[in-house]
Amino acid sequence: MEVWRIDVRKHSLSREPVPESWERLGGRGLIARILVDEVSRTCDPLGRHNKLIFAPGLLVGHMLSSCDRISAGGKSPLTGGVKESNAGGSTGLQISRLGLKALILEDQPETAGWWLLYLSKDGARFEPAGELAGLGAYACARALRERFGEKVAISLIGPGGENQLLAAGILNLDKDGVPSRINGRGGLGALMGSKGLKAIIFDAGDGQKPPIADPAAFKAAQKSFTKSVIEHPQSGVYRDFGTAAIANLCNTLGGLPTRGFSAGEFEGVETLSGEHLRQTVLQHGGDAQPTHACMAGCTIQCSNVFAGEDGKEIVSPVEYETIALMGSNLGLDNLDDIARLNWEVNDLGIDSIDTGAALGVAAQAGLMQFGDAGRALALLDEVRRNTPLGRVIGSGAALAGKVLGVRRVPVVKNQAISGYDPRAIKGTGVTYATTPQGADHTAGLTIRARIDHLNPEGQAKVSRNAQLNMAGYDTLGACIFAGFGFGAAPETVRDLLNARYGWQVGDGILQELGRETIRLEREFNRQAGFTAADDRLPEWMTEEALAPTGSVFDVPAGDLDGVFE
Amino acid sequence: MEVWRIDVRKHSLSREPVPESWERLGGRGLIARILVDEVSRTCDPLGRHNKLIFAPGLLVGHMLSSCDRISAGGKSPLTGGVKESNAGGSTGLQISRLGLKALILEDQPETAGWWLLYLSKDGARFEPAGELAGLGAYACARALRERFGEKVAISLIGPGGENQLLAAGILNLDKDGVPSRINGRGGLGALMGSKGLKAIIFDAGDGQKPPIADPAAFKAAQKSFTKSVIEHPQSGVYRDFGTAAIANLCNTLGGLPTRGFSAGEFEGVETLSGEHLRQTVLQHGGDAQPTHACMAGCTIQCSNVFAGEDGKEIVSPVEYETIALMGSNLGLDNLDDIARLNWEVNDLGIDSIDTGAALGVAAQAGLMQFGDAGRALALLDEVRRNTPLGRVIGSGAALAGKVLGVRRVPVVKNQAISGYDPRAIKGTGVTYATTPQGADHTAGLTIRARIDHLNPEGQAKVSRNAQLNMAGYDTLGACIFAGFGFGAAPETVRDLLNARYGWQVGDGILQELGRETIRLEREFNRQAGFTAADDRLPEWMTEEALAPTGSVFDVPAGDLDGVFE
Repeated sequence: MEVWRIDVRKHSLSREPVPESWERLGGRGLIARILVDEVSRTCDPLGRHNKLIFAPGLLVGHMLSSCDRISAGGKSPLTGGVKESNAGGSTGLQISRLGLKALILEDQPETAGWWLLYLSKDGARFEPAGELAGLGAYACARALRERFGEKVAISLIGPGGENQLLAAGILNLDKDGVPSRINGRGGLGALMGSKGLKAIIFDAGDGQKPPIADPAAFKAAQKSFTKSVIEHPQSGVYRDFGTAAIANLCNTLGGLPTRGFSAGEFEGVETLSGEHLRQTVLQHGGDAQPTHACMAGCTIQCSNVFAGEDGKEIVSPVEYETIALMGSNLGLDNLDDIARLNWEVNDLGIDSIDTGAALGVAAQAGLMQFGDAGRALALLDEVRRNTPLGRVIGSGAALAGKVLGVRRVPVVKNQAISGYDPRAIKGTGVTYATTPQGADHTAGLTIRARIDHLNPEGQAKVSRNAQLNMAGYDTLGACIFAGFGFGAAPETVRDLLNARYGWQVGDGILQELGRETIRLEREFNRQAGFTAADDRLPEWMTEEALAPTGSVFDVPAGDLDGVFE
Repeated sequence: MEVWRIDVRKHSLSREPVPESWERLGGRGLIARILVDEVSRTCDPLGRHNKLIFAPGLLVGHMLSSCDRISAGGKSPLTGGVKESNAGGSTGLQISRLGLKALILEDQPETAGWWLLYLSKDGARFEPAGELAGLGAYACARALRERFGEKVAISLIGPGGENQLLAAGILNLDKDGVPSRINGRGGLGALMGSKGLKAIIFDAGDGQKPPIADPAAFKAAQKSFTKSVIEHPQSGVYRDFGTAAIANLCNTLGGLPTRGFSAGEFEGVETLSGEHLRQTVLQHGGDAQPTHACMAGCTIQCSNVFAGEDGKEIVSPVEYETIALMGSNLGLDNLDDIARLNWEVNDLGIDSIDTGAALGVAAQAGLMQFGDAGRALALLDEVRRNTPLGRVIGSGAALAGKVLGVRRVPVVKNQAISGYDPRAIKGTGVTYATTPQGADHTAGLTIRARIDHLNPEGQAKVSRNAQLNMAGYDTLGACIFAGFGFGAAPETVRDLLNARYGWQVGDGILQELGRETIRLEREFNRQAGFTAADDRLPEWMTEEALAPTGSVFDVPAGDLDGVFE
């Protein structure tokens, strides 16, 4: 495999061997390693010294179920710290079939303008992309697929990324060519915009799977892993109900973000639940699908296609985080409304979590009423028109709160808290506070741990364990739900890596990868100016009781500081 | 003397003796001490745990020339760190004649609404102030003076503070009752707004000067100090030309902020100079005055009253920082225009430096053309109407840059750089970078040092010395120009303090006070999460050459880190 280093100023490509110290990392861990090795901690995230990195995880390229994710990263324009955000879709598979261990985009164009970067076995080519400027993600993806064919993978930005909004993400095509698999968090779309790139085409042509050191052993381990995924009871739940399956549980625990995180229980949860989502999808028929894979080879298929009453697709997929942040958090209980808002933010190429949280802040500031989907759509139209108000919303919840004078803002390190109120699910609160990534449930969700989620004691330990596992999975390129399989058959992580690379790693490899990843990330953040003061939830969440449990976030600061010490 | 502690939730006053460790501090140093002793470093600056502190300097209360300044402070809503901002006018004199060493405002009202706080020898009284809500600073001051008489001092906020804009300041009356002496920096007006206070009335009645341990010695030292001030050649320059006297020098050095800090030399400097200002003022006649004291007893009188061609007052005073940030920085060369913009920001109660810098950012974002005074006024009208765009502008340059997607933003620790481009006057750049206050020329201006301002070597030492002196003056309650007198007769600092308090301090007292102040401030900031990464100028200022000198800011990071180590 190689490292491809692209200078977006000179339009040059340098193909380099993989440095030895990078070999045993991939995805999130490799991004942390590259940032520590190459990027000034104190650089302007949207300036020429930041780098945008794409790196497939260690197990990517083999269509292992739920294991072909693509990590993107850099110094975060949103948090100012280390950032990795991973997504499904076809980019991981194509980039690894191009033989790339990492793609590193450097510098900035000297003059404004938009470019396509086309990557194939022959190398890199820049093409002017002025005609795509301003296009929404869906239209842009369609135009590019018409031009480059249906087999290529594409990473692209919407207007949000072009306008360097801090909540902008990078969109990847799903297996059907829809740009709905999003490196959503931390403003990586703004970083890509700052590099002058509207899209990157990954064309592996008839590229091969990455080489496998011991194919027989790999096949055996793959079989064992796949079986373990399929047999896990949760896999079936997610297949039937998608990620929305968690909505009812979260509501029951009193942790469903409701009306600007002012309550943890939503009277409209019934129509937001996984069960209702499935029922609606089946009822509406037509384009709608209750079960849908975002990556080829996935056996869980937690995605879906949501259609209106007329059976016409509105958006794919509708996921729990969007249901929580743009649904209950905005007082909305109608899936059609949420699906339309979801399509808008996807087309704009901005994170539904941070944008949903920002809309909740806007509602607190009196710019919309909770429950008014039309007004929420109108505010997203401000984003599209790039008005000052639209830029405030598209800058995410933290900035929106500062500008609009709202104190009750659900963020850590400037990144929005996702669909689990940390006052009711305190282990996840520890994760939000202490992950180097800024508030992010995928950094270590604890909702399924068998603990009293309201008891502050012991949450640090539960969170640490979850964080190490997730940093490990993110380094493998494995989806959070691949964890169902790996959790039940942990030896398959070891066996797959050893068979793939000819290594002799032991049983603890998952957490070893996680530990090394988080160590590097914390090193980067420390030198970027982060301290223990940044590893805290917002003050109001430690004081304002959350209905119905009446709970506040009360995990002691010492516990937070001890998570990784 | 006493400490008065006001609970704005309970509307209660606690009169307390001065703790021993506070006795030998005043003004800025005392504010740092109180913040370290009492305020959580990580608290939400606009939440109930922050405190708003007023403290006169150690020499305040005796009408010593230029030595009756009032310091206000707290954890800064703008920077998130320690904050002291001092102002002239009558508040310092009145608060010390009330016998207050410090006024500490705590907690927050339970419900929204506006209050007046009336302080007299009898204690504190809250009165509803709903009828003043929304009033501009000038109308508010007039209404309060009608009601409370012309002898009281008043600290008040404008609409900017009410709306908790991060660039909002606190306005104090000058000796003529005009609310033009402003604790402008760091968002202290937003902090006052968060306490539900529209205004504080300081009514010392027939209160006495603070006691003097050795009146004869004090009188002698005062005489010597006054003589030294009067005889200093710069005093005359500032008397004749005001602070605008520095404009030509700054332009000659290539450090006059021009069109969003894109050049250091402005073709329109002639009509912005102190000489032209004086000429215009004399020509326009009527209300206009070229020489004007902001505090009773000041012998320098660097203030002025600016009138239009009709002789009617537009604003008082027009100062250099406003001329630079709202003049050359916006491409404006007409003093009438600048005076009108100045009146607007004063009436709104927002910092002319941070607002001017924010308008420069808005111009870069295409929201106005440089040189278009009408559009600048229109943008300030957005602030008055509290629109989202207005809130962006009123939030200061740092937030405006983030929201509007502008990288060339002149800020350190989120506070705007003032009228000396640090690429051309590098010692002041060291001050901007390393003062715990965020970018602030009054923390240690080096423009008059006899050094090559373009040479990066030795600037750290020059800045350190200036910073220690200024922290000392700010702790005495002395204006930066009192330094002309103290500099020429340094023994008068020692003599005045010993005579006033019966102390036996030695010759080094000024820098001792400065050192202790900055030590406390750095301690607060460190625990609030600040690191060396925050002690830097913006990246672009280290890379973008400044015309006409072609200079970049190139003082090594090691020098910056060494300033206070």
